[in-house]
Amino acid sequence: MIIPGFRFAAAMAGIKKPGVWDLALMAADAPVAAAGVYTSNRVKAAPVLICRQRLRSGRAQAILVNAGNANACAGEVGLAAARETTGLAAELLGISGGLVLPASTGVIGQVLPVAKIKAALPDLVANLKPEGLPDAARAIMTTDTRPKMAHFQGKLHGQAYNLAGIAKGAGMIHPDMATLLVFIFTDAAATPAVLKTLLRQSLPVSFNRITVDGDTSTNDTVLFLASGKAGNPRIAHEGPEMAALGAALNQVMGDLARQVVADGEGARHFFRVEVKGAATAAAARKAAMTVALSPLVKTAMAGEDVNWGRIMAALGRSGARFDPERVDIAYGEAQVVQNGLGLGAAAEARAQEVLKAGPFTLAIDLHHGDFADYYETCDYTEEYIHINASYRS
Amino acid sequence: MIIPGFRFAAAMAGIKKPGVWDLALMAADAPVAAAGVYTSNRVKAAPVLICRQRLRSGRAQAILVNAGNANACAGEVGLAAARETTGLAAELLGISGGLVLPASTGVIGQVLPVAKIKAALPDLVANLKPEGLPDAARAIMTTDTRPKMAHFQGKLHGQAYNLAGIAKGAGMIHPDMATLLVFIFTDAAATPAVLKTLLRQSLPVSFNRITVDGDTSTNDTVLFLASGKAGNPRIAHEGPEMAALGAALNQVMGDLARQVVADGEGARHFFRVEVKGAATAAAARKAAMTVALSPLVKTAMAGEDVNWGRIMAALGRSGARFDPERVDIAYGEAQVVQNGLGLGAAAEARAQEVLKAGPFTLAIDLHHGDFADYYETCDYTEEYIHINASYRS
Repeated sequence: MIIPGFRFAAAMAGIKKPGVWDLALMAADAPVAAAGVYTSNRVKAAPVLICRQRLRSGRAQAILVNAGNANACAGEVGLAAARETTGLAAELLGISGGLVLPASTGVIGQVLPVAKIKAALPDLVANLKPEGLPDAARAIMTTDTRPKMAHFQGKLHGQAYNLAGIAKGAGMIHPDMATLLVFIFTDAAATPAVLKTLLRQSLPVSFNRITVDGDTSTNDTVLFLASGKAGNPRIAHEGPEMAALGAALNQVMGDLARQVVADGEGARHFFRVEVKGAATAAAARKAAMTVALSPLVKTAMAGEDVNWGRIMAALGRSGARFDPERVDIAYGEAQVVQNGLGLGAAAEARAQEVLKAGPFTLAIDLHHGDFADYYETCDYTEEYIHINASYRS
Repeated sequence: MIIPGFRFAAAMAGIKKPGVWDLALMAADAPVAAAGVYTSNRVKAAPVLICRQRLRSGRAQAILVNAGNANACAGEVGLAAARETTGLAAELLGISGGLVLPASTGVIGQVLPVAKIKAALPDLVANLKPEGLPDAARAIMTTDTRPKMAHFQGKLHGQAYNLAGIAKGAGMIHPDMATLLVFIFTDAAATPAVLKTLLRQSLPVSFNRITVDGDTSTNDTVLFLASGKAGNPRIAHEGPEMAALGAALNQVMGDLARQVVADGEGARHFFRVEVKGAATAAAARKAAMTVALSPLVKTAMAGEDVNWGRIMAALGRSGARFDPERVDIAYGEAQVVQNGLGLGAAAEARAQEVLKAGPFTLAIDLHHGDFADYYETCDYTEEYIHINASYRS
């Protein structure tokens, strides 16, 4: 997975604990077009504030990311820490400090260990290599159990190009937006404005359609860098080339989003809540999200219990208008509710097989209109509680 | 705890499992003034639909409640089951069927075992006694670990009177409204309209200020019956007597609400989230509710981890406007955040002692205005997951 124009490296800086990858550097050979989208949380981490400011230029050359410390709620000290570490990275790379974007993930409210990061930076810069993306994917993990990567190869104006991304997820995952770190790299040529537009278009079909626990982080950041090494005519306007690049981005972002849900903290069951037949688009969205977020639905899934009454209860409190006596619910192909009434033990037994077999679609038809929406999510297990009760210890 | 004019009884009908209290009857000696408020869930259980209809008269004489089966999402069969069981109770009591109010709690989507209830009814009616309220409190429990009762004695126009209530709670607890069964009895005399007004006034300071898991049930019902046996002049208008009765109701409802949170499914830590300094009343409410509902805040409490960063993150996504750099947070008297910044390990250690010591107030000052609000809640433990993953097995 090589993206011409980019190199990657990872290090064990001792931010999380000794012997664990926790620092990553991703660098372009020259300043490249770049765009970012950030958390909607009013409390924004220092690296988010700095990224937003630096990316007003539409240009960047490197991203410095640490795990284990969010560098959030740390005031001026946090901003200074992000400036100091990215400043040293820029110095070692021989580029302007404003071209290095910071990102952090981990515990909120602790001071970033600047000395540890500075000590690790010379080797990190020296180790940059085109094939280093998997190392970077591993170094940005927090409670993730595995790295998340996705890759796409296509053609633009006859020129082959690559688009690849990495993500970290696991907890504080909610579609508003996503709540995690995502870094996308392509060798296609496009303007920063095109990259930004495509990012915004991609979120509603990727990271804005997944939820683990409904909490939104202070650090969510999605960055998109384009080196232009593929040699295609630079995409600067809407048209078939921009649409093709957008489709590639949707595929990679969607793939990463599914990987994030599939690695939700403590999760064992994964399902897509599809609501159709809603009276409005907003109703479809609310109904799907309420079911996907319901602790009682999610714990029933953990217990492999086809407790469809909790799905009805969640729909009923979602704010969506519908007639309970027209609702149909199915686990995959196994229908358990028709016209608001349960179809009995045999139907539930078939649905339980679907639930046990692996990722499935929970299909809900409100029969109240023509709008549909969906969310992808996972169950709530004892392990989710355990991970988050002991997160800082 | 005797409320003149009322008698109570409980039975083991075998709805939950043999040898467990699961059926209660509460009866007045004659038709009395009555009022109810019900779930806001669009999916309403059969007994809720029937209560609402029968209480249009403002009169009732008995309440028949079962645990173990919600009689929800059961269509016409569910409505017929509620009519049939309350009809037999009325017959045995020698009163009109429309004077018996049904209530149910338990699994959604299963047919009410009418035969079991009918078989238990003759003894239930025969066992009615003035001192039976604690038995009824026990019989309406589901995942509750203990019965919930509260009692008030006061005077109205110089006449001594009683006001007592019972509640069942544990899960599907969310302030919108409350999500549980609550039955309030008084021997004071008041019109149905006064009872209804007082109930509506009481919810915002009792069951609309507690949350366990954010799920709203299909069965929420609060009923308020007044026998008038105290002999006070019947309260029919606003004034000091109505205010006094309202204060008594608030005290009993508030007490019951706190008991419900204190017995939240699997809960070990209890806290009151108080937000002040908000720019608007809505902002204060949203901020307090978002913190009280945040899975990450609740799991940190379970782990006795003073992870205030998650509180900042929850405030930030609540929709309330504020400046993160002005926020103060304290666990009881132990302040851990000042002007958005952590006060360090010693402060967190003091806060952890507060967290470990028992119920406490999580005090948040946004310093952004003059509005305040609060919610009472509990932590999320592995036990909550366990209870709800295995609820139907």
